[in-house]
Amino acid sequence: MPIASVKYEPYQKVDLHDRTWPSKSIDKAPIWCSVDLRDGNQALIDPMGHDRKVRMFKLLVDMGFKEIEIGFPSASQTDFDFARWCIEEGGVPDEVDLQVLVQCRPELITRTFEALQGAKTPIVHFYNSTSELQRRVVFAKDVPGIKQIATDAAKMITDMAAKAGGDFRFQYSPESFTGTELEVALEICNAVTEIVKPTPENKLIINLPSTVEMSTPNIYADRIEWMIRHLDNRENLIISLHPHNDRGTGIATTELGLLAGADRVEGTLFGNGERTGNVDIVTLALNMFTQGVDPELDCSDINRMKDVYEYSNQLKIPERHPYVGELVYTAFSGSHQDAINKGMKAIKTANKPLWEVPYLPIDPQDVGRSYEAIIRINSQSGKGGIAYVLQADYGLHLPRPLQVEFSQDIQAITDSEGKEVSSNRIHERFLERYVDQPGARLKFVDHQTFPDTEVKGRRIVEATIIDQGKEVTISGTGNGPVDGFVDALSRHIGVSLSVLDYSEHSIQRGSNASAICYMEMEHPGGRIFGVGINTNIVAASLEAVVSAANRVV
Amino acid sequence: MPIASVKYEPYQKVDLHDRTWPSKSIDKAPIWCSVDLRDGNQALIDPMGHDRKVRMFKLLVDMGFKEIEIGFPSASQTDFDFARWCIEEGGVPDEVDLQVLVQCRPELITRTFEALQGAKTPIVHFYNSTSELQRRVVFAKDVPGIKQIATDAAKMITDMAAKAGGDFRFQYSPESFTGTELEVALEICNAVTEIVKPTPENKLIINLPSTVEMSTPNIYADRIEWMIRHLDNRENLIISLHPHNDRGTGIATTELGLLAGADRVEGTLFGNGERTGNVDIVTLALNMFTQGVDPELDCSDINRMKDVYEYSNQLKIPERHPYVGELVYTAFSGSHQDAINKGMKAIKTANKPLWEVPYLPIDPQDVGRSYEAIIRINSQSGKGGIAYVLQADYGLHLPRPLQVEFSQDIQAITDSEGKEVSSNRIHERFLERYVDQPGARLKFVDHQTFPDTEVKGRRIVEATIIDQGKEVTISGTGNGPVDGFVDALSRHIGVSLSVLDYSEHSIQRGSNASAICYMEMEHPGGRIFGVGINTNIVAASLEAVVSAANRVV
Repeated sequence: MPIASVKYEPYQKVDLHDRTWPSKSIDKAPIWCSVDLRDGNQALIDPMGHDRKVRMFKLLVDMGFKEIEIGFPSASQTDFDFARWCIEEGGVPDEVDLQVLVQCRPELITRTFEALQGAKTPIVHFYNSTSELQRRVVFAKDVPGIKQIATDAAKMITDMAAKAGGDFRFQYSPESFTGTELEVALEICNAVTEIVKPTPENKLIINLPSTVEMSTPNIYADRIEWMIRHLDNRENLIISLHPHNDRGTGIATTELGLLAGADRVEGTLFGNGERTGNVDIVTLALNMFTQGVDPELDCSDINRMKDVYEYSNQLKIPERHPYVGELVYTAFSGSHQDAINKGMKAIKTANKPLWEVPYLPIDPQDVGRSYEAIIRINSQSGKGGIAYVLQADYGLHLPRPLQVEFSQDIQAITDSEGKEVSSNRIHERFLERYVDQPGARLKFVDHQTFPDTEVKGRRIVEATIIDQGKEVTISGTGNGPVDGFVDALSRHIGVSLSVLDYSEHSIQRGSNASAICYMEMEHPGGRIFGVGINTNIVAASLEAVVSAANRVV
Repeated sequence: MPIASVKYEPYQKVDLHDRTWPSKSIDKAPIWCSVDLRDGNQALIDPMGHDRKVRMFKLLVDMGFKEIEIGFPSASQTDFDFARWCIEEGGVPDEVDLQVLVQCRPELITRTFEALQGAKTPIVHFYNSTSELQRRVVFAKDVPGIKQIATDAAKMITDMAAKAGGDFRFQYSPESFTGTELEVALEICNAVTEIVKPTPENKLIINLPSTVEMSTPNIYADRIEWMIRHLDNRENLIISLHPHNDRGTGIATTELGLLAGADRVEGTLFGNGERTGNVDIVTLALNMFTQGVDPELDCSDINRMKDVYEYSNQLKIPERHPYVGELVYTAFSGSHQDAINKGMKAIKTANKPLWEVPYLPIDPQDVGRSYEAIIRINSQSGKGGIAYVLQADYGLHLPRPLQVEFSQDIQAITDSEGKEVSSNRIHERFLERYVDQPGARLKFVDHQTFPDTEVKGRRIVEATIIDQGKEVTISGTGNGPVDGFVDALSRHIGVSLSVLDYSEHSIQRGSNASAICYMEMEHPGGRIFGVGINTNIVAASLEAVVSAANRVV
């Protein structure tokens, strides 16, 4: 890595020795504004279409969001159409205000007002980049030039709103606020306020984004406190935060920004958004909840929220994500499990409503989850581990139910031998159990198929197998070799077998490579897997059938 | 959700109005201690075996960690064996100190010293839980009783170390420090210090874990500053942080804790660990780096770190994880892309070493990555999106290269029609292009195979196909039907084809369901996919071959 001090400069601190935020508390929820459908959506490899947007929007309304940024209608036809849908067909509750984003450019502003026709109390959110770096390298403009962009837009927007006659609200963002000198941000915001002329009834939202997170969160809090102290007309402003998470401190940045006096937070569910994401509103809300503060957002069905997130964004929520990840209500260690059990018992006898359980900062039931104790296994024998080594080391992609079935076998070995099982040993055991099957009764030799002259599309299968050392010929019919062979073998062994599921893949590349077939069969006693490996894909399937049959008989 | 204020109490603040940390800066790296092999490992569904541990350990050493907690050898045979391996065979560099964890219990302490025999400068890390809640519901002991546990252990450990005669170092953690009253934590830590008698040459590490993250990070920082002001013998102590991430603020908690005067940080790569994880040391280190501070950890090959993380922990790093996620060096929006390009150009002409690019807080090359601009497609047509709908709605698992090939086709449709393509339309187009192929020259009808009497294991394939409306019979040989059919078809059309890769799966469950086969073929002009669907798995494969052939001829 290069020498840090040569390539990077420290972020500038704020001279604010009389800061008050470190002694404050968060004692009420801010105004929440979801930007899932805008900042979140624009950061997806595959942005949402109408269906995915609708599903996200309905969730946001159900959770109780009162302000929802629904898109950037002048930049995207999809967003424009969605705005029209919300206004014309969406059945948006009266108390929910739709917000749209627009750059400070006349043609985009005109188009934005087209998108908003008929909306009840929309918020027009306009922005331009004010950072020192962007002024210099992107816009080649000085501060007055950049301020002019903002004030021109403010004038055009308030004029158009007055003409349109609706109940418009306004929001201005000095974009890249974290890269903007405080005095410059202040000057531009004050100039915009002067034009918009907010009132106590129609406040102007001043949004101070951490577009790129550039410092430890205490400095952002200092900046917010400084801005709030200096802004004109504070009583008619709503101070809004819009943090990102480039340094992994988006949540803290928001919390300290709220301590510093901000009124409103823009973010997304579980923190989707550009690069490292926008701040995660769900974690913020539940952080408040677990401190006894009503978050004013309903998070009681976190599984639905997760499902919609994953459907609409087509991103997975990781296992360790606060409050929602698969593993966060799990205790692996015996001492943690013991403490949790004792804590839960104490709550029952205490007859107090207070939640007090070690290692569980929230009652999982409050968000529709439950506590899971997981007993550690000191080996590679978990089903994930086995699947992993067979795939990484041997190119085998076991279907999930087979992973489960086989992991129990390996677990038994670990338990009896009391130590780890190597990758090689796992592979050998897999082959022994499913493929080679030493000592097994049946063995596949060869087969042929012929069209069934009586039924069009049916085929007759004639196969040679070895049964207890003796070669026998069996035959059956079906719509293909597997089907016909299963029929033949079922008759031969007197056990009714059928195929439940199968998958097959080549093990090495090229036509001379082997194929491996995983066959899940049903038999009167249940379900069982068989596996076959052969250079001939049909033979591999039929071997898999025989493998399963051997495990039944 | 229940009423927050009834069920949860706010965390207690610290009366520290003269706090100094908010005005401080982080200007040097702390002592880093990796707990990947202990706290990280114990939180895995499938804990690491020897191989996975070794790979992680080597990475940690290569990155420059000087203190590595290698396990809890008295609680786990695997950890005991790994400790022995490190000491006897690991070739651990002299400057790396091995640390092991142990509870304050005599039999465990004895076993721990067995595990450490022959270690050069090991750190014995002992702990007991001191929190108010655990004293009450888990241990049913008062403060003197809990303190006694700690001091007894301190005495036993220092005695055993003196007897063993090696260069031992010691670390004490009042576990659940965040749930412990400050005065109690102070009293117990001071009592331990009095017994251990640290010196400037052999300092005692006092580790103050945020075992469960319970408050905004500023309160943790206040607690650290308070402890540092009050601890006896400060000059002979190393104050260590061990944050978790239950509120999503582990990074900030650590950073503010360092501002408050801590000397050392325990954490894991990318934040694996109990529940929501331990603090992520890589993000901490790169946060320092991008502020011009030498992190004293080599993160120049973040891809290797990611690979080892995913191999050893068997967890995936999410797309938006700071500095390492797949999407964090990506700009989707046109205006971001434009600003980045201008910033990069400005750097070239500026002839300064300073990194100044909008929306990219770090030069991706510093960690072995590159900047990726992704052009947004206003549709579901991204390759991920297409794969998603075909899988979710139609049960098709397209191989990745086929996703890429087919997405270009859909992209062309989106571009020409200028709007979104529905899931149904994508599926129809897929069938049309790969399966039904209206107007195509070749069509598969039927086939038979016979053993080749001349070569054992070879089969002769005789197949009926339609070529430009006329039925013809073709034949060839190979080790199975696919191979033989490819041979026959290649001769017939006069183009040499071969199979590169194939996969096949059932579309619905049951033996009468259809199979779909994806066949990647090589031909003189390149590679191409064919797809076949049939109730007969062999017919599906041969149809896939014909499908590919149609796309070549």
